[in-house]
Amino acid sequence: MSENCRLRGVLSPVLTPFKEDLSPDLVRYAEHCRWLIDSGVALAVFGTNSEANSLSVNERLQLLDTLLEAGIPPSKLLPGTGCCALPDTVELTRKAVEAGCAGVLTLPPFYYKNVSDDGLFNSYSEIIQRVGNAKLRIYLYHIPPVSQTPISLALIERLLKAYPGIVAGIKDSSGDWNNTEAMLKNFQSDSFDVFCGSEVFLLRNMRGGGAGCITATGNVNPAAIVDLYKTWRDAGADDKQAALSRTRKCFEIIPMIASMKCCIAWKRKYPSWAVVRPPLVRASAEKAEQLQKALQDDGFEMPGISA
Amino acid sequence: MSENCRLRGVLSPVLTPFKEDLSPDLVRYAEHCRWLIDSGVALAVFGTNSEANSLSVNERLQLLDTLLEAGIPPSKLLPGTGCCALPDTVELTRKAVEAGCAGVLTLPPFYYKNVSDDGLFNSYSEIIQRVGNAKLRIYLYHIPPVSQTPISLALIERLLKAYPGIVAGIKDSSGDWNNTEAMLKNFQSDSFDVFCGSEVFLLRNMRGGGAGCITATGNVNPAAIVDLYKTWRDAGADDKQAALSRTRKCFEIIPMIASMKCCIAWKRKYPSWAVVRPPLVRASAEKAEQLQKALQDDGFEMPGISA
Repeated sequence: MSENCRLRGVLSPVLTPFKEDLSPDLVRYAEHCRWLIDSGVALAVFGTNSEANSLSVNERLQLLDTLLEAGIPPSKLLPGTGCCALPDTVELTRKAVEAGCAGVLTLPPFYYKNVSDDGLFNSYSEIIQRVGNAKLRIYLYHIPPVSQTPISLALIERLLKAYPGIVAGIKDSSGDWNNTEAMLKNFQSDSFDVFCGSEVFLLRNMRGGGAGCITATGNVNPAAIVDLYKTWRDAGADDKQAALSRTRKCFEIIPMIASMKCCIAWKRKYPSWAVVRPPLVRASAEKAEQLQKALQDDGFEMPGISA
Repeated sequence: MSENCRLRGVLSPVLTPFKEDLSPDLVRYAEHCRWLIDSGVALAVFGTNSEANSLSVNERLQLLDTLLEAGIPPSKLLPGTGCCALPDTVELTRKAVEAGCAGVLTLPPFYYKNVSDDGLFNSYSEIIQRVGNAKLRIYLYHIPPVSQTPISLALIERLLKAYPGIVAGIKDSSGDWNNTEAMLKNFQSDSFDVFCGSEVFLLRNMRGGGAGCITATGNVNPAAIVDLYKTWRDAGADDKQAALSRTRKCFEIIPMIASMKCCIAWKRKYPSWAVVRPPLVRASAEKAEQLQKALQDDGFEMPGISA
């Protein structure tokens, strides 16, 4: 992969639409991805917001094939591949590399808690060696509030030393700006990119030399986030950042995944878009109304989708 | 399933031996299971101590087939089937029921944190309905220190009301005796059994009306634990409990899974028994020596295995 197709900017951890029987809705999925690409974001499919860990390996492979067949360029894809079981992670990572994806975003195995850096180093090391492809670009996924399995600065350093170029970046979803700042200072380079995990930190991340953000609301508010990414050096950037953060707040009325799916169901006039897989629950009618009102007050729009 | 083959007593969450290349060692697995059965325990294969979430679905299916082909009676099997993804849990549960296993021990989906009781109820409900077999006996698996996804008393009550007979019991690995006691008082019955998750609580659990224990050290110290189970009403029970708890302490010098594998490697003179999958790490030589010394001081033996 040449440096030219290195991922930078805004990525959306793509929501996975389900039918009422809880099977993935491939048609809606391709439609959503096409709209996201047209809105200027790249696709971190199979992330936390994608309910990816609620999908089997085969379902993920099928969804990836759906996008490739729909003509989504693999250079715009950063599939999540980190599972608890090494063979699953290797299978998904290998598939992504062979399909020409820009990289993979890989959770550490997350069932056991308080595991050592040695154990996590071994995990990533086994993945890299088993995939055995120089084209692999692996982005580490630090999301301790959910995975409960943090990726320490010391671990990043070890991995970078062992696999320079292959270990290509990190998504920091700690929600702790000090941590992102430490990652930027210690590791950001031409061959290691730091993405923040929420657009709330986008401006700070760009000013600190970061590569962009991979953010939930990239699913619903992509164009405005991309606009800040493109104009972060300009005078109005702080105001744009404030507006983005305000809009995000509206979505946080409900747990984020249910909230965004509820919004898309409303905007696309397609109630089944609100379906989530257990253990998540969809928004109640009352909460959905609250969300709708908050978004209307905010002046929120999804350009290209009528409501 | 008749009440006669209802599981009671001591179950071992069976360790999974790996070869040096990290693939499951089927021969050692069958040998270990045979020894466990001969020692009087039933087999909670694919538990936390089995590194089950580090195995793919296909690997679990292959291991189960290995045991069935080796003539292990399915009435002695309680496979762990709870994955993050509903289709995986359904596939494993269906296979276990069709194979005639005594029941399944099912973790809630554990990636998302702070999920609601509604979401967990929906998870178990979907599993039960999709498997759609009256022979299903599902044991809930409460292990908040690892899964970070507790099963509340209110959730048990709801599940029992919706699926009496099918929801057949619980393993309480909270490590909190007050919680086990509350489960016993509220739910223990002819059709719902409470197992404690460590032999440290075995005597208290039996005195409180519980069904037995499903305990890590059932892998290394099965006969002695079974002995307390069989004689818990007798005069010497408190002394036996104290001895069991002392032996367990020795194993806790190292994280439990590495520790027990290290012990078996030593007793069976087969170093590769110590292999674990990442993110776990095997015991260092120094720790292994410490463990060996502690076990020798304790007078620990594995009857039927020379050392």
